[in-house]
Amino acid sequence: MALGREACDLALIHANVVDVFGRTVLQDRTVLVAGGQILAVVPSAQCPKPNAKEIFDCQHRYLTPGLTDAHVHIESTLLTPENFARAVLPCGTTCVIADPHEIANVAGISGIQYMLDASENLPVHILLAMPSCVPCTPFEDAGASLDADAIASLMGHERICALGEVMNYPGLLAGDDDLLAKVEKAEALGKVADGHCPSLSGLELHAYAGCGIRADHETTEPDLIRERIEAGMYVFIREGSAAQGLEQMLPAVNSNNAGRFCFCTDDLHAEDILSSGHINSILAKAVKLGLPAATAVAMATLNPAQCFGLAHRGAVAPGYKADLVLMEDLVDFKPCMVWSDGACVVNGSTISGFRKPVAVPEEILHSMHVAELAPDCLKLPVPSGRARVIKINPFSLVTDSIVMDVITDEEGNLATRKNKDLCKIAVIERHKGLNRIGLGILKGYFYSGLLLGGAVATSISHDSHNIVVAGRTDEGMLLAARTVAEMGGGLCMVRDGKVVSSLSLPVAGLMSQEGAESVAKGLKVLETIARQCGCCEGVTPLTTLAFMALCVIPSLKVNTRGLFDVNAFKFVPVDAGDDNTDCI
Amino acid sequence: MALGREACDLALIHANVVDVFGRTVLQDRTVLVAGGQILAVVPSAQCPKPNAKEIFDCQHRYLTPGLTDAHVHIESTLLTPENFARAVLPCGTTCVIADPHEIANVAGISGIQYMLDASENLPVHILLAMPSCVPCTPFEDAGASLDADAIASLMGHERICALGEVMNYPGLLAGDDDLLAKVEKAEALGKVADGHCPSLSGLELHAYAGCGIRADHETTEPDLIRERIEAGMYVFIREGSAAQGLEQMLPAVNSNNAGRFCFCTDDLHAEDILSSGHINSILAKAVKLGLPAATAVAMATLNPAQCFGLAHRGAVAPGYKADLVLMEDLVDFKPCMVWSDGACVVNGSTISGFRKPVAVPEEILHSMHVAELAPDCLKLPVPSGRARVIKINPFSLVTDSIVMDVITDEEGNLATRKNKDLCKIAVIERHKGLNRIGLGILKGYFYSGLLLGGAVATSISHDSHNIVVAGRTDEGMLLAARTVAEMGGGLCMVRDGKVVSSLSLPVAGLMSQEGAESVAKGLKVLETIARQCGCCEGVTPLTTLAFMALCVIPSLKVNTRGLFDVNAFKFVPVDAGDDNTDCI
Repeated sequence: MALGREACDLALIHANVVDVFGRTVLQDRTVLVAGGQILAVVPSAQCPKPNAKEIFDCQHRYLTPGLTDAHVHIESTLLTPENFARAVLPCGTTCVIADPHEIANVAGISGIQYMLDASENLPVHILLAMPSCVPCTPFEDAGASLDADAIASLMGHERICALGEVMNYPGLLAGDDDLLAKVEKAEALGKVADGHCPSLSGLELHAYAGCGIRADHETTEPDLIRERIEAGMYVFIREGSAAQGLEQMLPAVNSNNAGRFCFCTDDLHAEDILSSGHINSILAKAVKLGLPAATAVAMATLNPAQCFGLAHRGAVAPGYKADLVLMEDLVDFKPCMVWSDGACVVNGSTISGFRKPVAVPEEILHSMHVAELAPDCLKLPVPSGRARVIKINPFSLVTDSIVMDVITDEEGNLATRKNKDLCKIAVIERHKGLNRIGLGILKGYFYSGLLLGGAVATSISHDSHNIVVAGRTDEGMLLAARTVAEMGGGLCMVRDGKVVSSLSLPVAGLMSQEGAESVAKGLKVLETIARQCGCCEGVTPLTTLAFMALCVIPSLKVNTRGLFDVNAFKFVPVDAGDDNTDCI
Repeated sequence: MALGREACDLALIHANVVDVFGRTVLQDRTVLVAGGQILAVVPSAQCPKPNAKEIFDCQHRYLTPGLTDAHVHIESTLLTPENFARAVLPCGTTCVIADPHEIANVAGISGIQYMLDASENLPVHILLAMPSCVPCTPFEDAGASLDADAIASLMGHERICALGEVMNYPGLLAGDDDLLAKVEKAEALGKVADGHCPSLSGLELHAYAGCGIRADHETTEPDLIRERIEAGMYVFIREGSAAQGLEQMLPAVNSNNAGRFCFCTDDLHAEDILSSGHINSILAKAVKLGLPAATAVAMATLNPAQCFGLAHRGAVAPGYKADLVLMEDLVDFKPCMVWSDGACVVNGSTISGFRKPVAVPEEILHSMHVAELAPDCLKLPVPSGRARVIKINPFSLVTDSIVMDVITDEEGNLATRKNKDLCKIAVIERHKGLNRIGLGILKGYFYSGLLLGGAVATSISHDSHNIVVAGRTDEGMLLAARTVAEMGGGLCMVRDGKVVSSLSLPVAGLMSQEGAESVAKGLKVLETIARQCGCCEGVTPLTTLAFMALCVIPSLKVNTRGLFDVNAFKFVPVDAGDDNTDCI
C-alpha cells in the first residue's frame, strides 16, 4: 500500500509533520495510513496522487503524534477510565500511563482488573503501571495489601507497562525484600520501574536508581534534575492540578539531554481538563517559556514511548501506530482533529470511537463497608485539657504538630464548638466494617464561628481511602459520614444539620459514573459552599481533607488507628497532658 | 554496597565521567562497582572514603562506557571471534553486534552456532544479528539456505539481538513472504531488524522502514540520512577498511538528532585494527572533525544500546554493566584501562579475561568439498572470438560489462596469455562437490605481461564463498585452487607455476585460527607479492576478487553457474557473437 499498489485507508496530504526523531518540522508531507498504522510520510510532491480510500487535506496545519501523559492517577479526576478518556481525547491525548494506586488501595487486584477492563479498546490507549506500594505504610487499614506475589499475577498483562511509582524509597534503600522482588519481577518481564523520590540525592539516589528505578516525577530543582539524568533516570515534568513544576524545571532542559524528559500530570481535576486542557496545555506553556516546539512534542510522545519501551508509539513514521493530532499551530496546541489507530475520533467538537462503558463489578460498586456508627463514637476525651493538634499550613500538604489547651465538656471530652478555630476530624474505617475510628483536632481548616453545625466528609483520603470527616458538631459529622457511606462513597457537605450538597462516587468510593462536566460542576458546588462556610484561605476543602490521613507526609496526621506523628513514625495520643511543649 | 554498608568490589576515584544521557563530562567522580555492575557515580567529594575491596585512582582521566560496534562481520577480519575480541578489546570495544553472514553462507545454522559458542564469555560482549539473506540470490551455490523457519530455530537466543541487515530490499518491497516472515519473527521476539538500503528513498524507503527495518549503514549522503532519521531509522556511520563515510556524513548530525546515530565498521581488516584501532579511532576522527566528544561517545555506547534494545548497556550509571574504558583524553581516545563486567581486562599492554578458545567443530574445520578438478576444466570456449568481459573499475566494487574481441586458440578457447591485460576468472563450487565451475574474463585486474604463469585464489568470495581464482594460465589457476582446497580454505598466490605465498583459513574457509598479528602479516605478504606481480592500481588483489562473484552489485559478475548480468538479473554467455554492442 505504501507503494500505491493497493489503496490504503487514508492519506493526509499537505501536513506539516513534527519529526520527533530529528526534533524538527517537515513541511508539506503526505502521510499514508492503513490498518491503524502509518505506512509512509513523504513530501507531498513525491506522492501527488495517493491511492487511498479517503484523502484529507491538512492545509499545512501541524501533525504531531498523539500525546502521552507519562504518569497520571485517573482516579484523581473522579472519572472512570472511559469518561477520563472522553475528556482528554479532544486535548490530543492518545496514550496515558495510569497508575491505579487509589483503587488498588480500595479493591486490590480486582480494582486494577476493573481499570484494565474499563480502559480496554478506547481511543485513548490507557496503559497501566502496577501500584508498587499498597498499602503505603504498615499502619494502615486499607482495602487491600499487594505483595510481590499479588502483583506478579497481573504484571505480565500486555497493557501493564511498568511498576508504578516506587514511593517507598526508604524501604528500597533499607533492602525491603518484598519491594525488591516487585522491582525484579517487573524487570524480568521487561517492564520499567517508575519512581517517586523527592529530594533524594547522591549515593542514596544512585542506590535507588541502581535497584532499577528509571524515572522520577517529584523533583523540580535543576541540580537534582541533572543528578537524575546522570543516574540514567527519565525526569517527568509534572503540571497537574496541585503541583506545577514546568517553569522551575525548564532551565534544566537542553538539546543534549532533552531526550530524557517527559511530561505528566500525576493528579488532575476534571475541571482543569475542561478549562485548560491536558498535555497540550503543557506544550503551549513550555513553548511560551522558550522550549522549541518540536522538542516539546518529542517530550510528550517519543520520550515516554522510549522510557516505557512502548514499541511503535510516539512518532509520525512508517510502522508506527496512526495516533495523530492535527494542530492549528505549535503555539497554542489546540487540536482540530485526532486520529487513534488510524480512525478519526475527534473532528472539531465531534468525538467518536467510544464503546459502551463496561459494567462496574458489584464489589467495586459497593465498596463501602462501614460498621454501625454509634451516636457517641466521635467523642474525643482530652482529660488534661491539653491536646496535640494538627495545624494545617496554607497551600501545603505538610502539617505542623502543635500542642495547645482546649476547652472540654464536663466529661473531659473536646467541646468542639467552644474552641475557636478548631474542628474535629475523624477517620472511619470503611473497607471491612472494622468499627475503627481515629480522631484528631484540626486547626486552620475553617475560620472561627462559621460552619455552625456543619461538616465535610469524603471517601477519598490518600492512600487508604477511608472516610475522613471534619466538622464542628458530632451530629453533623455523623450525618456527613453516613451520607457518604450510603452513597457508596463520595463527598458530602452538611450545614445547619442538613446535607446541603453531595457528589456520589460509587466506583470504589473514588469515581463517579458521570461525565467530566457533571463531576466538575458537582465538585464546584461543594467547594463553593465550603468556601462560603468559612474554609480557610489556602485550603481546598476536599483535597486538604483527603491528605489529612496520609501518614507519609509530615508532620501530624490521623488515620483509622489514631493520631500519627510522621516524623517519629509512630502513633501518639491526642491528650498531651504529658507533653512539655509550650502551649501555643 | 552503594550506601557503603558492605564493601563493593571496586571504587574508581577521581574519574572524569562521560555522561551519555546529558552528553556532557562530569568532573571528578567516584564510580562504585560490584558484581559486574555499576552501583553509583557520584562526585568524589560525596564519597571521600569508599568502602571497596579495591580502589583505583583515575587521576582525572576520562571514563567512558565500553565502546560498541553496531555492525561488523567478524569474518572480514579473518579472525575467529576469540582472536577478534583480543584485537579490539585494547581499543576499548566491549560490545559488538556481529552479523555472521559469511559463515552462515558456508555452514548455515551450524556456522552461526559456532560463532555463538566461540563468542561466549568473552570480555568483549559479542551479540549476533541473525543473517537474513542466505543465500543472497536464488542463483547461488551457497553452502546453506536459511529460510524463516531455519532462523526461527535460533532467533530466541539471548545473544542474538537482531535480524541481520535485510539487504534484499527489492524482495521486501516485492512482498517476499519468507523475508517478511523473518522480520515478523524477529519483531515478535522483541528483536530489531537491521537494514541495508543504499540510495533507497521516498515511498520505497518508507515501505522498507514500515516493514520494521530500523537501521541502515549504507547511506552517506546527508539528504538520504535525514530521510532515514525522519523514517524512524537509526543511521550507522560506517568507517571500515573498505568504506569510510564519517566525513561525508557528519554534517547531517546535530544535537537534536544525535541520538539516532551509531558507529560501525561493517568490514574490517586485522591490519587496520592493529595499526589504527577500532571504534576509538572513529571517535578520534569524529572529534577532530568537530563532533563534541560526549556526543561522539554517546553514539558509540548509549545509542547502539537503544537501537538494539540492550538493557543496562552503554552508560556509566547505576544499574548498568560495568564495561568501562579509561581514556587519557577525549581527543585521541587511547585507552589505558578497560574493565569488562567490572573486571580489569586491559591494563596498559596487558590483556586478560580470555578463556581457552572453543574447539572448532569438524564440519566447520573441513568445509571445503571440491570435486576433482580435471586438467581441462578451465577451458573457456569463445567460438566467435568476441566475448563479454568483466571490466574492473579502480576503487569500486561496481564492474562494467564490455564486449571485446579476444584471441583464441585453434580450438576456439580463450588463449588467456595472448590477450593483453586480460585474465581468466573461475568460480569453483566448493560446498558440496558439485563440480560446477563458472568462467569469465577479467579486464583491469593485472597489468599486461606480468603474472606470467601466475594466479590468485581465495575461498572468500561474497556471499557464497566458493573458490574464486584468477590467473593467466590454467595450470597456475588449478594449482592455486587446489592449494586453497587442500588448506581447508584460504588464500593462495602462484607465480611461475609455484605457490609463492598462502594463508590458510581453515575455519569455514573464512577464518584463521592465528592471532591478528599473524593474519595481518600473512595477508600483507600476499598482497605485496600480488602487487609486485602487477596488480592494477585501485585494485586490492584479494578483496577485489572476493567481490567478483557477488551477483547483487552491478554490472557483470560470475558465479559457479556462469557469467551474470546483474542489471538484467540473468545469466549471459561469455561468447558475445550475437551481441551487437560495439567492440571496445
